[in-house]
Amino acid sequence: MQKPADGRKRVVIESVEPEIDAGRFAIKRIVGDTVTVEADVFADGHDHIAARLLFRFSEIPEWTAVPMQPLGNDRWRAEFPVSRLGEYLYTVSGSIDHFDTWRSDLEKRIAAGQDIAVDLLNGAQLAEQAAGRATRDDADSLRRRAAQLRDSEDLAAAQATALDPVLAALMALYLDPAFESRYERELRVCVDREKARYSAWYEMFPRSASAQPGGHGTFRDVEARLDYVARLGFDVLYLPPIHPIGNSFRKGKNNTPAAEPGDAGSPWAIGSEEGGHTAIHPRLGTLDDFRHLLHSAAQRRIELALDIAFQCSPDHPWVSEHPEWFKRRADGSIQYAENPPKKYQDIYPLDFESPEWPALWDALRDVILFWIHHGVRIFRVDNPHTKAFSFWEWCIAEIKRDYPDALFLSEAFTRPRVMQRLARLGFSQSYTYFTWRNTKQELTDYFTELTQSPLREYLRPNLWPNTPDILPEPLQIGGRAAFIARLVLAATLGPSYGIYGPAFELGEHEPLRPGSEEYLHSEKYEIRDWHLAAPESIAAIISAVNRARHDNSALHANHDLVFHSADNPSLLAYSKASRDGSNVVLTVVNLDYFHTQSGWIDLSLDRLRLAPSDTFQVLDQLTGQRYLWQGPRNYVELSPEKSPAHIFRILRRVRSEKDFDYYQ
Amino acid sequence: MQKPADGRKRVVIESVEPEIDAGRFAIKRIVGDTVTVEADVFADGHDHIAARLLFRFSEIPEWTAVPMQPLGNDRWRAEFPVSRLGEYLYTVSGSIDHFDTWRSDLEKRIAAGQDIAVDLLNGAQLAEQAAGRATRDDADSLRRRAAQLRDSEDLAAAQATALDPVLAALMALYLDPAFESRYERELRVCVDREKARYSAWYEMFPRSASAQPGGHGTFRDVEARLDYVARLGFDVLYLPPIHPIGNSFRKGKNNTPAAEPGDAGSPWAIGSEEGGHTAIHPRLGTLDDFRHLLHSAAQRRIELALDIAFQCSPDHPWVSEHPEWFKRRADGSIQYAENPPKKYQDIYPLDFESPEWPALWDALRDVILFWIHHGVRIFRVDNPHTKAFSFWEWCIAEIKRDYPDALFLSEAFTRPRVMQRLARLGFSQSYTYFTWRNTKQELTDYFTELTQSPLREYLRPNLWPNTPDILPEPLQIGGRAAFIARLVLAATLGPSYGIYGPAFELGEHEPLRPGSEEYLHSEKYEIRDWHLAAPESIAAIISAVNRARHDNSALHANHDLVFHSADNPSLLAYSKASRDGSNVVLTVVNLDYFHTQSGWIDLSLDRLRLAPSDTFQVLDQLTGQRYLWQGPRNYVELSPEKSPAHIFRILRRVRSEKDFDYYQ
Repeated sequence: MQKPADGRKRVVIESVEPEIDAGRFAIKRIVGDTVTVEADVFADGHDHIAARLLFRFSEIPEWTAVPMQPLGNDRWRAEFPVSRLGEYLYTVSGSIDHFDTWRSDLEKRIAAGQDIAVDLLNGAQLAEQAAGRATRDDADSLRRRAAQLRDSEDLAAAQATALDPVLAALMALYLDPAFESRYERELRVCVDREKARYSAWYEMFPRSASAQPGGHGTFRDVEARLDYVARLGFDVLYLPPIHPIGNSFRKGKNNTPAAEPGDAGSPWAIGSEEGGHTAIHPRLGTLDDFRHLLHSAAQRRIELALDIAFQCSPDHPWVSEHPEWFKRRADGSIQYAENPPKKYQDIYPLDFESPEWPALWDALRDVILFWIHHGVRIFRVDNPHTKAFSFWEWCIAEIKRDYPDALFLSEAFTRPRVMQRLARLGFSQSYTYFTWRNTKQELTDYFTELTQSPLREYLRPNLWPNTPDILPEPLQIGGRAAFIARLVLAATLGPSYGIYGPAFELGEHEPLRPGSEEYLHSEKYEIRDWHLAAPESIAAIISAVNRARHDNSALHANHDLVFHSADNPSLLAYSKASRDGSNVVLTVVNLDYFHTQSGWIDLSLDRLRLAPSDTFQVLDQLTGQRYLWQGPRNYVELSPEKSPAHIFRILRRVRSEKDFDYYQ
Repeated sequence: MQKPADGRKRVVIESVEPEIDAGRFAIKRIVGDTVTVEADVFADGHDHIAARLLFRFSEIPEWTAVPMQPLGNDRWRAEFPVSRLGEYLYTVSGSIDHFDTWRSDLEKRIAAGQDIAVDLLNGAQLAEQAAGRATRDDADSLRRRAAQLRDSEDLAAAQATALDPVLAALMALYLDPAFESRYERELRVCVDREKARYSAWYEMFPRSASAQPGGHGTFRDVEARLDYVARLGFDVLYLPPIHPIGNSFRKGKNNTPAAEPGDAGSPWAIGSEEGGHTAIHPRLGTLDDFRHLLHSAAQRRIELALDIAFQCSPDHPWVSEHPEWFKRRADGSIQYAENPPKKYQDIYPLDFESPEWPALWDALRDVILFWIHHGVRIFRVDNPHTKAFSFWEWCIAEIKRDYPDALFLSEAFTRPRVMQRLARLGFSQSYTYFTWRNTKQELTDYFTELTQSPLREYLRPNLWPNTPDILPEPLQIGGRAAFIARLVLAATLGPSYGIYGPAFELGEHEPLRPGSEEYLHSEKYEIRDWHLAAPESIAAIISAVNRARHDNSALHANHDLVFHSADNPSLLAYSKASRDGSNVVLTVVNLDYFHTQSGWIDLSLDRLRLAPSDTFQVLDQLTGQRYLWQGPRNYVELSPEKSPAHIFRILRRVRSEKDFDYYQ
């Protein structure tokens, strides 16, 4: 067996965390975060070691070193800040620290009253060797100290020099690289802007935005809707595909196989003679209209998110221009989408096994670049799990290399390993199973997994109580309380969430048929008139919830979500704190949408930054009501009629007699 | 960003288990074992996939493929046998299985009564493509079937061909490699002989083996002791270093700093003018005597284990021949061992930071090869944690390349990460913390960790109730019951264990001073006379315990150690079963060495291969006593005076009236 390049490197570095799949994928952070890194670092024998965390922005070749602190049991920790959009790298190094070993041994020898004459000479040698690696000034300083250590005339002075912290600090700067080991992998951090983590999405169909009943909405109509969306408090407006819709095999209302004349068709059946993925449906407006909408939205601090659905209607220009990008049946026809025995003949999937895959990949990337060049930075990707994983990994990296502010939301309602892979390979946010997690146990388990397991490093959840595809059963039967409760859960359990409106705020709850999660008169297949001013609208509550999110930085992240126990199985209580601990929010939700539920919450006071004897106020961010609480056990009662949820801000300071001047 | 080499490979493979440190280290098995491998294997979309486990012996270039079975949730499993000493490799592949997808879709179409004419043609195409990859006979067979699929005259026959399992089996043989992904790493298995896992060690100082009181024992004396060791039931006889002992700074009795004339010195102060690590202490005998001993031991199925202690006395030949292998102090003297303020001037450590490290590594390897060439295959390595990790990894690999039957026991009583690293880098067995695990909780926790965590894949525990360095407190105070209980624990909690005798069987229990774990009159520093026939010897019990190990294959491995609950905190109950389930052993130990303890054991019957209603016998392997038990709760009483432990073999079959012929 070959010997290693340098067998004298005795330090080993193991179990670096965070590390995903042996460094195959990046962890995710946002600008301004810190990355805390731990590693096992140790050597044979009893020599002291120095462990350092090394990090750099990908475009800067030099590493910055941060000394790691020992946690015991050979575990070390340090952290570094990420201040720029893009990619950072980090790794760990470990050195034998001969000087620190020597210094520590010397102290023991002195304490035992031993003769240290030779030891001082040993130390002088170490200092002289370090001088050979030092800058000129430091080298002078080290040589001067080495001389003092050699001065057998004045042992007391030599001893003082030996233990001088300045010498220790100098020596720590010039560890001998001959004895430094480097961890075998360099690990990556993908640094996004804050919206990657903290965002509130509003999905709407532009074609249903017309002020004229029965009219086809336009981008101008959407522009007119912006103030409404802003009032609701959303900062991402997500539009289903805005492209021309195919005519061949167009679906009719309620997903009937054949459209009637005048039926609008599904926006996901992309492409007609009017163009494909870079064209705009003529009835929505022009590219100029689109840019105007983008601009108007930006003025209201709303970003537009476009839908990326990589599939084609039979009328898409690519079908004739690039037949090699589609699978062919044995009779020469192009293979339509199907899930046998169901057929979706209005959709042709792209063939990721095509021998012409490199050109296909380029074309798909260019679709995204097209919209990026027109100012879009957020993309909600439709069914990414039906396209090749390696395509997404390449495509997202391609885009983010030049546009590190681009964000991609993965709409993969599929098996866990597939969802997780998509998150790891680069998607900024992910749809989740929240949509189907309803009970206290389900919600606690799922959000514990999302926030406490390694998923926390790479999967950023975006929680949707409804989507155009999914009207969950609780919303079908639970009435207004269900809508409010699911809204509060989504908005507070995740820093990112979204609703599909106006169906949501107007309480749309009729399924296509019993047992189905499809909407009756789904907007996927027809234009709807929405009466935004309807009295049943919960718009005001949505505004209040989004205001609570805005006002409480605890709700902008998920790093320390904590569930608190409650003696009533219908009451779910959880809290979050901002990183500096100054903002703490406790949410309590009644999961029973039909009955008033009450009970005692057992708070983990330390996680709320409270001492056991503290008296504290809880201030409901939705109603403005205040309660004075003390200690861990406190009573809560929530009625579906009034409000099924509290979003309490914890006010730790309650005035007491000690606040009066004369008390001092 | 570069596109991947082939973007059409859509299957991903993740989370392969077992895998240690991203494949950096090998897992361990013994000849005859199977390796069970699991992986997450999945692709985008709905295509069916085929996952295969690939394995090969390192010297055979071709992989053998085993189809993996789906476990649900995208997890797959298969296993392979390891039948040869040395190294095996394994990895996982995943393919899109277009034919299986097609066949499953076809069944759904047929069930729905759809027209399948074009689908049959699609299938014919797949069969023809596979024919292009097949052997001539299979290609003919595939083409014939493709023709049948194309036969639109006889749709019923074509449909039968489509669903024919022979066609499916042929197609599974010739998956298109263009759509096959390979896991990015090849993982290693180190396959040892059985003794690597299952062994019983007896440590003794040869110099104390003389039949003459006060005499210096020889290899011939050890030979005379072999029958005794065989009677005790041990199969490894481990001798502390047998080399010449240094005179400079020789330690006296009880580790006094200066030896008296005639003091024997520590065998670990290796080397004198009579030679170093490849020489034999003249008073023990010659190399011929040693080989004779080795041969005599082998006749009794006992293997000799030598001590590898890579350190030198000041008189070792290397000190003058290779001063560059030692650290030098500033005054030119060689650095002796120390742990300031303690000095061990009789020992010079080797300097693994020496610029001449390659020659040093070779010399150390050659020491081991020297003894291998004289027939030794087992080495107990002294303090490996004070030598460079990379040295051991290289050295063990070097030896095992040519001598895959060589075994190395790591004597590293140190921090967990260090012990674990040594086990991973190649040591066959490891000393453990068993020596200091005494309470029910401590033993349960520690052995759960050893047998249920990833440690099980690479750290093979070897349990020692005592060593020449460690007389644990329970043995100092617990008397005969403590010795028997600790013996039973070591012999049944681990498939490998050892005792340092005759100190152990004779109940030697006086510490050097109160609070110390050193033996008074330690054999490390003086020759002892042992009275093997002393009435207090527990030799007969040791024989019985080793016989129970020999007779019960459940005790030869650790893979399904299970702890059973007992309502008395002093009673520890655990079981093991052989891999085929035919042998099951339940051990119960009274951890209170001073009082009789009794209580109810709550057995996990399924882990004992018992049905809830079974009546079963438990047969004590030490006393021959039998008890008839039924159901999970059974009573046990153990008195320190009689026996502090049961080693029960479970006899599942109890005769009943149904065993009589006339009952039939």
